[in-house]
Amino acid sequence: MSTLFTNVTAVLMDEEGSVLRNGYVAVRGTGISHVSPCRPEGVFDQTIDCAGKVMMPGFVNAHTHVPMTLLRGYGGGCDLHTWLNQYIFPAEDKLDDRAVAAGTALGLAEMIASGVTCIADMYMRPGIIAGQVLEAGISANLSLGGTYFEDPAEFSAERCSDCAAQIALTEEWHNAGGGQILVDASIHGEYTSVAPLWRWMADYAHAHGLGMHVHISETEAEHKGCLERNGDTPIQTLDRYGVWDGRAIAAHCVYTTPEDWAVMVQKGVSCVHNPYSNLKLGSGVAPIPAMLAEGVNVALGTDGVSSHNSTDMFADVKLAAILHNGVGREPTAVMARQALEMATVSGARALGRHTGRIEVGRVADLILVDFDAPNLIPCHDVRENLVFSAHGSNVVMNMARGKVIYQNGDFFTLDLERVRDEVRRYALPLIFG
Amino acid sequence: MSTLFTNVTAVLMDEEGSVLRNGYVAVRGTGISHVSPCRPEGVFDQTIDCAGKVMMPGFVNAHTHVPMTLLRGYGGGCDLHTWLNQYIFPAEDKLDDRAVAAGTALGLAEMIASGVTCIADMYMRPGIIAGQVLEAGISANLSLGGTYFEDPAEFSAERCSDCAAQIALTEEWHNAGGGQILVDASIHGEYTSVAPLWRWMADYAHAHGLGMHVHISETEAEHKGCLERNGDTPIQTLDRYGVWDGRAIAAHCVYTTPEDWAVMVQKGVSCVHNPYSNLKLGSGVAPIPAMLAEGVNVALGTDGVSSHNSTDMFADVKLAAILHNGVGREPTAVMARQALEMATVSGARALGRHTGRIEVGRVADLILVDFDAPNLIPCHDVRENLVFSAHGSNVVMNMARGKVIYQNGDFFTLDLERVRDEVRRYALPLIFG
Repeated sequence: MSTLFTNVTAVLMDEEGSVLRNGYVAVRGTGISHVSPCRPEGVFDQTIDCAGKVMMPGFVNAHTHVPMTLLRGYGGGCDLHTWLNQYIFPAEDKLDDRAVAAGTALGLAEMIASGVTCIADMYMRPGIIAGQVLEAGISANLSLGGTYFEDPAEFSAERCSDCAAQIALTEEWHNAGGGQILVDASIHGEYTSVAPLWRWMADYAHAHGLGMHVHISETEAEHKGCLERNGDTPIQTLDRYGVWDGRAIAAHCVYTTPEDWAVMVQKGVSCVHNPYSNLKLGSGVAPIPAMLAEGVNVALGTDGVSSHNSTDMFADVKLAAILHNGVGREPTAVMARQALEMATVSGARALGRHTGRIEVGRVADLILVDFDAPNLIPCHDVRENLVFSAHGSNVVMNMARGKVIYQNGDFFTLDLERVRDEVRRYALPLIFG
Repeated sequence: MSTLFTNVTAVLMDEEGSVLRNGYVAVRGTGISHVSPCRPEGVFDQTIDCAGKVMMPGFVNAHTHVPMTLLRGYGGGCDLHTWLNQYIFPAEDKLDDRAVAAGTALGLAEMIASGVTCIADMYMRPGIIAGQVLEAGISANLSLGGTYFEDPAEFSAERCSDCAAQIALTEEWHNAGGGQILVDASIHGEYTSVAPLWRWMADYAHAHGLGMHVHISETEAEHKGCLERNGDTPIQTLDRYGVWDGRAIAAHCVYTTPEDWAVMVQKGVSCVHNPYSNLKLGSGVAPIPAMLAEGVNVALGTDGVSSHNSTDMFADVKLAAILHNGVGREPTAVMARQALEMATVSGARALGRHTGRIEVGRVADLILVDFDAPNLIPCHDVRENLVFSAHGSNVVMNMARGKVIYQNGDFFTLDLERVRDEVRRYALPLIFG
């Protein structure tokens, strides 16, 4: 399959912050083959006219829990403890494969329609999620969020069900779909696991060339608890076990310290900023400007729908671009360009994927945004409009891995009516009776 | 004209937080005539089936500068001083009536499509704005933002062009369209005016039964400057001149104090919270939970598009509902119900309008939200979904003052194509060459 995009205005997300105007972008197979003001040679299976639209790389949602879409708005208005223990955990206990598949498909539909082409997910039953992602057409780094609540002295890989699950997940799904699915090793969090699991996951990731995905320093309680338990922050505690020795995704990082950032820079650990979730749950505001200044790679995520409660990455980009300005009383604390980088090229780096930038050789993950919509007129600066004025509903095309999977409200890889029915007739009755 | 809404699920915004289910809402003329689980007697000109949708009161955008829609994204990425002096003020100097009309129509289109039915605007040429609002069909409190930069010792109403403008505005437009337009007296800000103007505006408002609209304590510099100039906060300084003696809108209130809130409660002054603008411009975070606890009426506004840069009130509601939770590390600091109140019934109170609640006798300002959209499935709680998951693009109908002015993407009171043309061919070339 090949596609030629004509009349392209594109925010390339290159180092120079270039905007291609009246140009051409061509796609062959799953990759970008041409980006230029000049028309490429050759014939193409399809041509898409981009007049009145703006192209950008599809969003990388670098930390999410897609099946939790089923729990949208459930237990809202409670404190964190009540919300988790009285609502979320009991509901999750009732999930089965089919419900996870339904919730995943629903979440993917919402993400695809608003321009997401790549995710890093952490949730139970990741093999089920993988199947849905493969069908939907986007790319995903999947992880199961390893936990271990038993006596660490008696830990062994055989006794730890998440080790067995990790092995099975890797063997079945890593590199599926020609790299569409990547499996990451994972630790749910320092406070939900033990040192032997950290060591095992680190060794396993190293042995199999996997990345690592961990919840880190999301709340002050977690941070202080770790200091008490280990005499060190979560980042530095896990560092002693080799957890950060390969590519790694550290989600949240709200209570990280300058010493943590130094480890992250040295080891190449990416922070995933989840501004909506951190505000909604009362966790706090991550020190993003300082992390950026120190050179930490900062990606962006929605977190699960149950703590957001949507997956419109445009909203997250905007919040990332304004939150720190307001809280720090510094209107240039995070610039529009930086917020867009978090959601594209920095996310790609976090996930170890060659996407997030419109450049020959990168994966063809591309979206078109309707700049004739009233909320995007006038356009004095394409990037400013994308960051501060665009909404997910302005996305009129989503191409993932070289294939158009969504256009003008139509999904080409999933049946929205069937997904709605499956959620309403199977998943919700299963969980909520 | 009369309308019967059937199969209504509605968030009524009454004191009890009621949700009407499978009910009926009827509208006769500009008012709500029936709200009940039972079908009303009589015949209606039209019937609108609300199955799969949720009705709520239209949003009251209680502080905005609609014509600034022309400056969307212009001068972004600068500090406040550069942005204002090098970009905004020079651009505004080039505006004429026709450009203000075009910018107003564009801003109204964006607001109408995302569910706004009532605004409080402050901008130059408010008579031009009034004409556009009358045509568009929503309600507006209009003000001109009175300033005076000359020697206060030589102030007189005759020497102050904004006094003359206020008189002309009131005489021409107050109560136009059967109350569709209300004129408010106004002071742009303490720092852009002088005591004799405050006294004149207060007296004028009192004599003519007008409300008052003032920018208050938006930045720390303004707050500290006022303390130096007047030995008191802006709220308390203006209080000495009678500015708060009638209904009043105090926009921003970021740096207000407990003593200010006491004045606001005692005098019935409404705070308009502008969370996006305050974050984006680096102004800070208004002490909203404390103001709510003290009993201040808190409304919600987008501020001008140049400092937001959109007018999707759903986004503002969500931000108001999470920002204080995150910054204060208290997940229940502002509840979903309170954020919805700010955007509806509390906004109505701020503007002195009998709207913002679905109740017999109130103005029929009503919107329908598509709850079959993927981002609103599932719905465990209607209010949680409206606050945290809905976007402006989910609005499928906007009824203002009893008349459907927008439905399923179609505008019935303005010609979007003509508005786009007028902005692109007249207003933008006029301002930017």
